[in-house]
Amino acid sequence: MDFIQELITIAPGADTPIYLQITNAFIRNIRSGHLRKGLKLPGSRKVAGLLKVNRMTVVAAYEELQVQGWIEKIPKKGTFVKKELPLLSPERIAENEEIYSIPKRTHFRFDEARIFPIPSSGFPPEGKLVFNDGFPDLRLTPMEALLRNMRSLSRRTVHKKYFMYGGSQGTRFLRETLSEYLSDTRGLPVTQENIQITKGAQMGIYLAASILLKPGDDIIVGEPGFTGAEFAFRRLNANINRVPVDHEGIDVDAVEHLCKTKKIRFVYVIPHHHHPTTVTLTPERRMKLLELALTHKFAILEDDYDYDFHYASKPMMPIASLDRNGSVIYIGTLTKTLAPAIRIGFMIAPENFIRAATHLRKSIDVQGDSLVENAIAELYREGTVTRHIKKSVKLYRERREHLCQLLNEELGNSVSFKVPDGGMAVWTTFRNTDLAVISQKAYKEGLVIPDGREYDTPAKKYNAVRLGFASLDFREQEQAVAILKELISN
Amino acid sequence: MDFIQELITIAPGADTPIYLQITNAFIRNIRSGHLRKGLKLPGSRKVAGLLKVNRMTVVAAYEELQVQGWIEKIPKKGTFVKKELPLLSPERIAENEEIYSIPKRTHFRFDEARIFPIPSSGFPPEGKLVFNDGFPDLRLTPMEALLRNMRSLSRRTVHKKYFMYGGSQGTRFLRETLSEYLSDTRGLPVTQENIQITKGAQMGIYLAASILLKPGDDIIVGEPGFTGAEFAFRRLNANINRVPVDHEGIDVDAVEHLCKTKKIRFVYVIPHHHHPTTVTLTPERRMKLLELALTHKFAILEDDYDYDFHYASKPMMPIASLDRNGSVIYIGTLTKTLAPAIRIGFMIAPENFIRAATHLRKSIDVQGDSLVENAIAELYREGTVTRHIKKSVKLYRERREHLCQLLNEELGNSVSFKVPDGGMAVWTTFRNTDLAVISQKAYKEGLVIPDGREYDTPAKKYNAVRLGFASLDFREQEQAVAILKELISN
Repeated sequence: MDFIQELITIAPGADTPIYLQITNAFIRNIRSGHLRKGLKLPGSRKVAGLLKVNRMTVVAAYEELQVQGWIEKIPKKGTFVKKELPLLSPERIAENEEIYSIPKRTHFRFDEARIFPIPSSGFPPEGKLVFNDGFPDLRLTPMEALLRNMRSLSRRTVHKKYFMYGGSQGTRFLRETLSEYLSDTRGLPVTQENIQITKGAQMGIYLAASILLKPGDDIIVGEPGFTGAEFAFRRLNANINRVPVDHEGIDVDAVEHLCKTKKIRFVYVIPHHHHPTTVTLTPERRMKLLELALTHKFAILEDDYDYDFHYASKPMMPIASLDRNGSVIYIGTLTKTLAPAIRIGFMIAPENFIRAATHLRKSIDVQGDSLVENAIAELYREGTVTRHIKKSVKLYRERREHLCQLLNEELGNSVSFKVPDGGMAVWTTFRNTDLAVISQKAYKEGLVIPDGREYDTPAKKYNAVRLGFASLDFREQEQAVAILKELISN
Repeated sequence: MDFIQELITIAPGADTPIYLQITNAFIRNIRSGHLRKGLKLPGSRKVAGLLKVNRMTVVAAYEELQVQGWIEKIPKKGTFVKKELPLLSPERIAENEEIYSIPKRTHFRFDEARIFPIPSSGFPPEGKLVFNDGFPDLRLTPMEALLRNMRSLSRRTVHKKYFMYGGSQGTRFLRETLSEYLSDTRGLPVTQENIQITKGAQMGIYLAASILLKPGDDIIVGEPGFTGAEFAFRRLNANINRVPVDHEGIDVDAVEHLCKTKKIRFVYVIPHHHHPTTVTLTPERRMKLLELALTHKFAILEDDYDYDFHYASKPMMPIASLDRNGSVIYIGTLTKTLAPAIRIGFMIAPENFIRAATHLRKSIDVQGDSLVENAIAELYREGTVTRHIKKSVKLYRERREHLCQLLNEELGNSVSFKVPDGGMAVWTTFRNTDLAVISQKAYKEGLVIPDGREYDTPAKKYNAVRLGFASLDFREQEQAVAILKELISN
């Protein structure tokens, strides 16, 4: 047993107390088979000498091991590794396996085929230019103001309650603030009872779809469409029907046609700027869609993720603002307005639906960060958000124009696109060039540009991609387009 | 049309520009029928005079209305409310309905019966004493340190990327930090690939159950058990089998018995301190459970939500630390350590399972708050968390002893309980008194105490409740127990 100092290494400066380090080392060695069952252990004095620690430290470790059921003291005989301890399948332990590690795969089975290949969303690589999907410029995010509000709220005793559980629907302060804001800016005269605070638009989509869907239910989406939402629908085992998206938005006649043969549970629509093509759904189609919803009793899941960003005239009001019958579930988010990592979004719906959403959310993650929610409400109240939006819209408008001009001048006939009325990306179709090839080559040149394959269906290859312009300044845009030009002309 | 100033009110100081206020007012009135279809509108000069605004403001409003499709200009005739606009079912609009509001109920149907009555978790009422379920004392939360770290990280340009999308699995920094911490303190030698960061333990439970379950699958829970988890399982349409919980934890023989007749998908267990009864699962039963998992290929869903809080000897290591076969999915949380509103938890599992969890999470809410995640990792690195736990454990131990002594001395034979080894609550059974009645009366006296009914089954009424001691100081405990004593003796 003199090899004990080989088995046990002590780190004197570590956070874990020394007696516990010794305890853990013994357990590791019993488990790995280095200290076999029934083995008589040396006395605490001897171990202390070998390890050069105080004897009481070893006594404490032995007591701990006994309490945990690894060793036993037999009066007048000594201390032994327990025999009865039903160590699991010791023959599986490799001879040289000193430290246990978690197996690569589960022993039980689960439906791994249901893991869909969601496009990776790792942090963008350092030092690369990125044409993202249309995200805000993080350099503008009013993070200082947000943190200042959080600190100020957290210091007030009366706000300590917001550290506690309590807001599955979102804090009342944020819901009241948003209901006023949405009423003023989007013609949505909602009360705080019509709002469920979510984590970004995605959670609103997931909650709504979870409430509406039973496995196999039919739903309708536009094609091409927002893959992030589709992944949630597939997860929930929806039967997805696709209708074309043209220059007026999703084809509502095709929706009507489907309603004749199928019981449609909901239609998922992004009327303001369709994702990915950025087209705006016309007023006529909006009205028609509402009428169909009334007749066929489906829900309209209206995703309005970038309402704040419109560069031409004021944006068209949401479908939800025209709905008098309770057909629309309206989803919005602040992630595009502030920053993706500030995970705040909202769902607007009749009260019975919001109640269901609140209950479901309790099962999923209980609630959001109440302190952050109130700090953001304060950002709205004090005018920071409005100023931030004004500033961003001005900047993004210039960047949109700059990028469109660059695409025209530099890439000319190699691409086609329509200048978007709003949002943060240009839907760009590549002609005579395989975007997937360009994407691979561009990466080597320092430019990240998606290959656009996520929008493809078996029937149609789009060879198109969203070029996010909001987060690239003029110089960055010029560099990025220069790389594309070089690759296309070769 | 001179009544136009009756229909349109302008708020000069509002955030919404005046031309837009006018636009919105027109839309409201067209929708409500006050301005009928085909109506000829007065000229901009006239409206400007009536409303006492600049004529160009009205021109801008009319242009906006035209773009949005509400009105049309007919050359040499004038401006008219559009006839073709398919206003939806105008006969449904009440004569006096000037401002639209969202209907109380949805027009479409959904399965409202699936909304389970989850116990309310509203913020505790002001000025009341609260026996909560066992939550930390928010007065101790190191919120200043957390906000300081967030500010410091957000100011460093290199960390700006954490405002962006990118961390569905959780930031690498937090996963690495936690893997070291869990290895040191719980004998879980995991790598960052074995960790999925979640929003509290609840999201870990929801993700794991979602991955494992198909509707109708059989699972096993202890009775009485943690209702928060059960709600998630019911949502996911699991068939819940209950096995008794005694003084050694859940009855593993009963688990074995069930495995003989049913294909069990997973066993949900809280071995460290079972919720609600606080009992610790014995080593023998842990081993037996692992063996059963090996044989019957079920998953063990180990919820270890309060590992940091143990007052006797060091806590027993998790079942996950004994699992060599990949049977255990281990769920933990920092909400009990820091504050419920800091929604950070984690799941530990073999890599194939973590991959599924990361993908599923993308569908639900994309990711967590990367900046908060890294700020918390920093709290661990700098030692703040360890110091905080040490301080809290010392205080909570005293509070546990104080409450147990009070219950003995003041309530005597009216209650029975076992001093818990850890956690933040005493599982207290009321004798000869109906807890539901006590709960109602106590509220009027200024004390919130749950009625405990959530634990009842058709077969058994427990008449018991968890009395959280961690968030009440000595004086508050004395006041709370005095109220109970008064009510019981009457």
